Amino acid sequence: MTEIVTAGILVIGDEILSGRTKDKNIGFIAEYLTNLGIDLKEVRIVADDEDDIVAALNAVRERYDYVFTTGGIGPTHDDITADSVAKAFGVGIDHHPSVVARFKERFGDALNEARLRMARIPDGAELIESATILAPGFKLGNVVVMAGVPSIMQAMMDIIAPKLRTGRRMLSDSVRADAKEGDIGSPLREIAAAHPDTSIGSYPFIDDDGKPNTNVVVRSRDQDKLAAAMADVKAMLATLHGSKNPVQ
Amino acid sequence: MTEIVTAGILVIGDEILSGRTKDKNIGFIAEYLTNLGIDLKEVRIVADDEDDIVAALNAVRERYDYVFTTGGIGPTHDDITADSVAKAFGVGIDHHPSVVARFKERFGDALNEARLRMARIPDGAELIESATILAPGFKLGNVVVMAGVPSIMQAMMDIIAPKLRTGRRMLSDSVRADAKEGDIGSPLREIAAAHPDTSIGSYPFIDDDGKPNTNVVVRSRDQDKLAAAMADVKAMLATLHGSKNPVQ
Repeated sequence: MTEIVTAGILVIGDEILSGRTKDKNIGFIAEYLTNLGIDLKEVRIVADDEDDIVAALNAVRERYDYVFTTGGIGPTHDDITADSVAKAFGVGIDHHPSVVARFKERFGDALNEARLRMARIPDGAELIESATILAPGFKLGNVVVMAGVPSIMQAMMDIIAPKLRTGRRMLSDSVRADAKEGDIGSPLREIAAAHPDTSIGSYPFIDDDGKPNTNVVVRSRDQDKLAAAMADVKAMLATLHGSKNPVQ
Repeated sequence: MTEIVTAGILVIGDEILSGRTKDKNIGFIAEYLTNLGIDLKEVRIVADDEDDIVAALNAVRERYDYVFTTGGIGPTHDDITADSVAKAFGVGIDHHPSVVARFKERFGDALNEARLRMARIPDGAELIESATILAPGFKLGNVVVMAGVPSIMQAMMDIIAPKLRTGRRMLSDSVRADAKEGDIGSPLREIAAAHPDTSIGSYPFIDDDGKPNTNVVVRSRDQDKLAAAMADVKAMLATLHGSKNPVQ
């Protein structure tokens, strides 16, 4: 169980690039994948442009075990994700019979050409659907295609997650340093060098008192190695505070 | 003044890919660039890994007029953005004399090796600094390197923005359709086809009453063409509501 499973995210949408819509999906998927035991290695955001989508998708899907896309599967002319995915894979695309049947039942006379677009699924794809999801997502090869609306994307993640191959989870632990990042940079470098199977990150922030502070995060797939590195971090911080701030 | 100026964003940081930190910079920069008259075409998020940073930076900087990076310019061992940018450009990197002088004045005895890392600037880069910014950003060629902490990144954008070449702004206008996206997809497609110098997007959302609704956004660099397309969208919506919901 030492396998590492990797992933990329491809966010599709002019509205994200224009700044009109602020993406909420990347952070959600990133956290979700970490909890599953899938390492997110790269994210790309591209426009509603077929060439851009195909190029980015082909670059990312060849590099990682999975790719998760969000956006562009609705009923309007700028929803071109399904067609772009089919083109990237070099497969056909058509109205999926079971989706069309469900749409007929659901929409009746309101089933128009625009809504039928949402039934266009690349050949060979597995549907990601439920009673509460209108336009289905799908999985084709290692590419998982999901909606851009956060609540729908999240429902789709819950459906597809149990079917994904996962690796050994990256574990993490964090400590608030109560120190400026510049005061712990050198000792952290030494600790990082002494614990090669961990990764140690430091993240500066301004605390509630308006003072510069730092969170230190240790990550490892091995619980014992994680604990050993964190123990060294905490010992270093204790020494720092003992010598500089004896009262605290 | 018909020139189009393009940009990419490169977000650097393990903490974004793990989901521990939720990015707030992409949306801010996207909106900022739109207001300046620079078209954001692509965003990439990569890990604190020199090879990944160099590869992504070289891909993006060759493709667009500008690249904006965030993250990885602090004092710790995982802050490798400056070195990676120097490597991508094939230039040297060293402690910048004026930054070192300022650090000596500011930190005195607390100027340690970790803090000196923040004075490492690639040869030929222009500093992005102010009295309130600790670690400077810099601009090298078409690449603008900024902090990951949002407040500092935003201060850096304000400093560098007046020096950037800008194009004709993409204008936009939006209307709340009070209709399901599937009911307006077909007429929107016709309107989009009739107004080739505009781009029309539709964005579904759930309104306060829990009902599916849609925002329609029209974008164009030409105010008259924008207004003409938006007039057609509003006329279409009026017809839709007149025939289907006469009471509303």
